[in-house]
Amino acid sequence: MYQAVIGQMSKELRQAETWLDAAIAHAKAKSFDPNLYLAFRLAPDQFPFARQVQILCDTAKTAAARMAGKEAPKHEDTETTMEQLRARIHSTVGFLDTLTAKDFEGAATRVITQPRWEGKVMTGANYFLEHALPNFFFHLTTTYAILRHNGVPIGKKDYLGTLTMTAPAS
Amino acid sequence: MYQAVIGQMSKELRQAETWLDAAIAHAKAKSFDPNLYLAFRLAPDQFPFARQVQILCDTAKTAAARMAGKEAPKHEDTETTMEQLRARIHSTVGFLDTLTAKDFEGAATRVITQPRWEGKVMTGANYFLEHALPNFFFHLTTTYAILRHNGVPIGKKDYLGTLTMTAPAS
Repeated sequence: MYQAVIGQMSKELRQAETWLDAAIAHAKAKSFDPNLYLAFRLAPDQFPFARQVQILCDTAKTAAARMAGKEAPKHEDTETTMEQLRARIHSTVGFLDTLTAKDFEGAATRVITQPRWEGKVMTGANYFLEHALPNFFFHLTTTYAILRHNGVPIGKKDYLGTLTMTAPAS
Repeated sequence: MYQAVIGQMSKELRQAETWLDAAIAHAKAKSFDPNLYLAFRLAPDQFPFARQVQILCDTAKTAAARMAGKEAPKHEDTETTMEQLRARIHSTVGFLDTLTAKDFEGAATRVITQPRWEGKVMTGANYFLEHALPNFFFHLTTTYAILRHNGVPIGKKDYLGTLTMTAPAS
């Protein structure tokens, strides 16, 4: 199940790449610099677009690495263009897609911690459900919302991507 | 696992109730009508706050009902005040919290459909992962973002709620 959710995160990140493409195209159509998006934000005391994308990627790669007991790839948070942010997403997807079902064996009972928790720990199951999952979708939707708020023509289908649907069994 | 995720949705909805409380308090402190929030939106062609809360609740109750093979409670979408939206969330939480692990047995292989899919179907597992989960967090975060954008003093801790953390085993 962790592999399935990480796979859904990978799918959503690939959808986010298309939002950046749409934003770049929108900027070109309106004759403004697409890199202006990096500083846009929904509230003065909320992180701007560039930081939302960085945290989105880091939430996914850190969750995947912690649950799989692997080392996540490093990123320096130095992006200054939309193309660089797109590459950051692409690199994150590349890492998520290397993991297999076997990597997640025993993930639910792994002991997870991070410096800001001051020595406290979470089980893998609780960390994934209460921290990684809601944080991932928080930064995903905020990334989307900043673009929508600034006129980029994307919609719910661009958010969800293609659904695995079939004709009913006859 | 479906029960665990539905439990996390219930937790997030209870967090959302606190955001509405914060919004009402903010409006009172600034001497404006808290029910003004219902019409606020992030983009002209995106649903306003009231509709985001309604869809948020319906995504959770419909996902829970479909996966558990139960009937979801009906709501008429007639809310005109923040207090009524809060009651809508509260009623949804009440339904989610009636479901037990046993209700979700066999959920992954249930056949899920809805009128707009024009006869096509999804397995319970795919529906939950690709449709219910991302839609729930989309409307949750958009609900949060509309309030943040309009000055309500809420933050990431109000979004995540309390984490199940323990001191490490010695």
